[in-house]
Amino acid sequence: MDVKAAIAFEAGQPLVVDQVQLDGPKAGEVLVEIKATGICHTDQYTLSGADPEGLFPAILGHEGAGVVVDTGPGVTSVEPGDHVIPLYTPECRECDYCLNPKTNLCQSIRATQGQGLMPDGTSRFSYKGRPIHHYMGTSTFANYTVLPEIAVAKVRKDAPFDKICYIGCGVTTGVGAVMFTAKVEPNSRCVVFGLGGIGLNVIQALRMVGARQIVGVDLNPNKRAMAERFGMTDFVNPAEVEGDLVGHLVELTHGGADYSFECIGKVETMRQALECAHKGWGESVIIGVAGAGEEIATRPFQLVTGRTWKGSAFGGARGRTDVPKIVDLYMEGRLHIDEMITRTLALDDINEGFELMRRGEGIRSVVTF
Amino acid sequence: MDVKAAIAFEAGQPLVVDQVQLDGPKAGEVLVEIKATGICHTDQYTLSGADPEGLFPAILGHEGAGVVVDTGPGVTSVEPGDHVIPLYTPECRECDYCLNPKTNLCQSIRATQGQGLMPDGTSRFSYKGRPIHHYMGTSTFANYTVLPEIAVAKVRKDAPFDKICYIGCGVTTGVGAVMFTAKVEPNSRCVVFGLGGIGLNVIQALRMVGARQIVGVDLNPNKRAMAERFGMTDFVNPAEVEGDLVGHLVELTHGGADYSFECIGKVETMRQALECAHKGWGESVIIGVAGAGEEIATRPFQLVTGRTWKGSAFGGARGRTDVPKIVDLYMEGRLHIDEMITRTLALDDINEGFELMRRGEGIRSVVTF
Repeated sequence: MDVKAAIAFEAGQPLVVDQVQLDGPKAGEVLVEIKATGICHTDQYTLSGADPEGLFPAILGHEGAGVVVDTGPGVTSVEPGDHVIPLYTPECRECDYCLNPKTNLCQSIRATQGQGLMPDGTSRFSYKGRPIHHYMGTSTFANYTVLPEIAVAKVRKDAPFDKICYIGCGVTTGVGAVMFTAKVEPNSRCVVFGLGGIGLNVIQALRMVGARQIVGVDLNPNKRAMAERFGMTDFVNPAEVEGDLVGHLVELTHGGADYSFECIGKVETMRQALECAHKGWGESVIIGVAGAGEEIATRPFQLVTGRTWKGSAFGGARGRTDVPKIVDLYMEGRLHIDEMITRTLALDDINEGFELMRRGEGIRSVVTF
Repeated sequence: MDVKAAIAFEAGQPLVVDQVQLDGPKAGEVLVEIKATGICHTDQYTLSGADPEGLFPAILGHEGAGVVVDTGPGVTSVEPGDHVIPLYTPECRECDYCLNPKTNLCQSIRATQGQGLMPDGTSRFSYKGRPIHHYMGTSTFANYTVLPEIAVAKVRKDAPFDKICYIGCGVTTGVGAVMFTAKVEPNSRCVVFGLGGIGLNVIQALRMVGARQIVGVDLNPNKRAMAERFGMTDFVNPAEVEGDLVGHLVELTHGGADYSFECIGKVETMRQALECAHKGWGESVIIGVAGAGEEIATRPFQLVTGRTWKGSAFGGARGRTDVPKIVDLYMEGRLHIDEMITRTLALDDINEGFELMRRGEGIRSVVTF
């Protein structure tokens, strides 16, 4: 079938909106009509050429929501008409990873996903007869896409696509890091580095689970008002701190953060986040993605005296199990998304969305089809 | 009273065995007759002058066992005749740390302990009228010492002093890292870097809790036989591994260690220990003490893909609560200590014990009084 997509032909070039051809779902696959998709920094990272594993040409996009329109042989968990969120971290419920309660990193289709292919080693997308790569197993910058059955989360039908698409990546990454990775307890004191979309979602999850203090750290004072609306209790601008930022944060949190979250992707702030954690029990969670080859460092004494350093991918969420719960939290008004969708665009204007993100304007742009 | 002690007059010099004067216990303190004490690398670290916080003159020693002979006003938890193990990590059961189940790092007397003084800010030891520093709050290289009540663990009376003194540091540090810090589950695959005393204690605890694979890593092939007796299932000599050690360990453990332990104190092996941990859920515990100012490093990707980096001090054990349990495990034959006490010396020969340790001969030397 012909579908309308934004194609990344090569690194560093704008996307090209054009018709591409999409084969129907094979065994274990589903055809999904994408109704909305967010534009995320990870799409930009790949499009820029900075991602050493980026493949071109490709259909980018990994933060979508849509409706199942067809299923291949053997598909049992969803049927046409079901509303779904595509999962770049699938959940097969059968691999060693899915069967270990400590991780969400299902590995069942990782190899082909990394190659920009469906699990059978081929692509469903083509352009003028030549195959186009899938991206993160999702390729949501198209009005139809094919996904493995294990890579869709079935969600309630009354949830608006143009909001819950954000749960496909940003919301879950931030909220999940609090709920699933760190398992933050009520009354905790927390520090959040970076008040972009991920940081705001960390903050609103901290408020939801009953954190007593939520310190936001950002060099941009314009981020303050929005972060306060989402639950931030204290704002720290490192440019305005005299002396050592870590010492300031330890003092502000009465001895250090019970939990700290790095939502920027800089190795310097990852170190600060660890070192502002409380002696004896503070945990620091890395969410941001650092540049290729960059390294974090600290004195081992920081760990021997009781701090724990960990990371979170897709918020530690198991997509098919946890994403529907996060949709419920949104629909029940316990998590807020609407205020974070600062721009809605047509697919034809998708490059404008990338431009807004590069300029740091707004929080999230969403393309609706 | 006059007591016989090994005095560290200055860095880099042998200890001097001589009589020193000891004041009796003040409020909240106990006088303990030391019956046996181990000689540990930490004593050597301080004596060498490498410890930037080392104070001289001092009575070193922190791995002892003995009998309470007198108590100061207000002491309620022990009485004369009780057998005790001195605790360099005390347990007051009242401070924020003791009341937080995530840590064992009681802070109630930390400031004065670090200054080589009793909690009231004075020393009980003197030599020819001049005060001598306490060390780690224990100073077990003397046949009598004064300790805060919160810094003694009361243990059963049928346990031999010349063996259980090792529980005062080395045994608990290794065994506790498995039981209390990592909480290793049965059937885990584990890697232990360094087969000295701490490594052996990690290994025997791993066997006790039912680990399915216990890989020991050491450059010295002479360590192999003893480690196998304590439960090591696989020995890896990095000098004999062709190519990447981490890759070899990941392959040997079928994907990586569920838990790894660094018992050497080198930042390079700390990194290897983290990176040989299993994607998704592997935890790496730093036990070894690195040189002053040294830093650990890794790519944050290692954490974001599910590895956890933590540390352990005194095995995460709460001394008054957990040390008596470890004594029980030894007396019940579930933990072995006798084979690790490779030399017993008189106090007059204590420098010989340091020399054995510096040469890497044997596992643990114990001084008996």
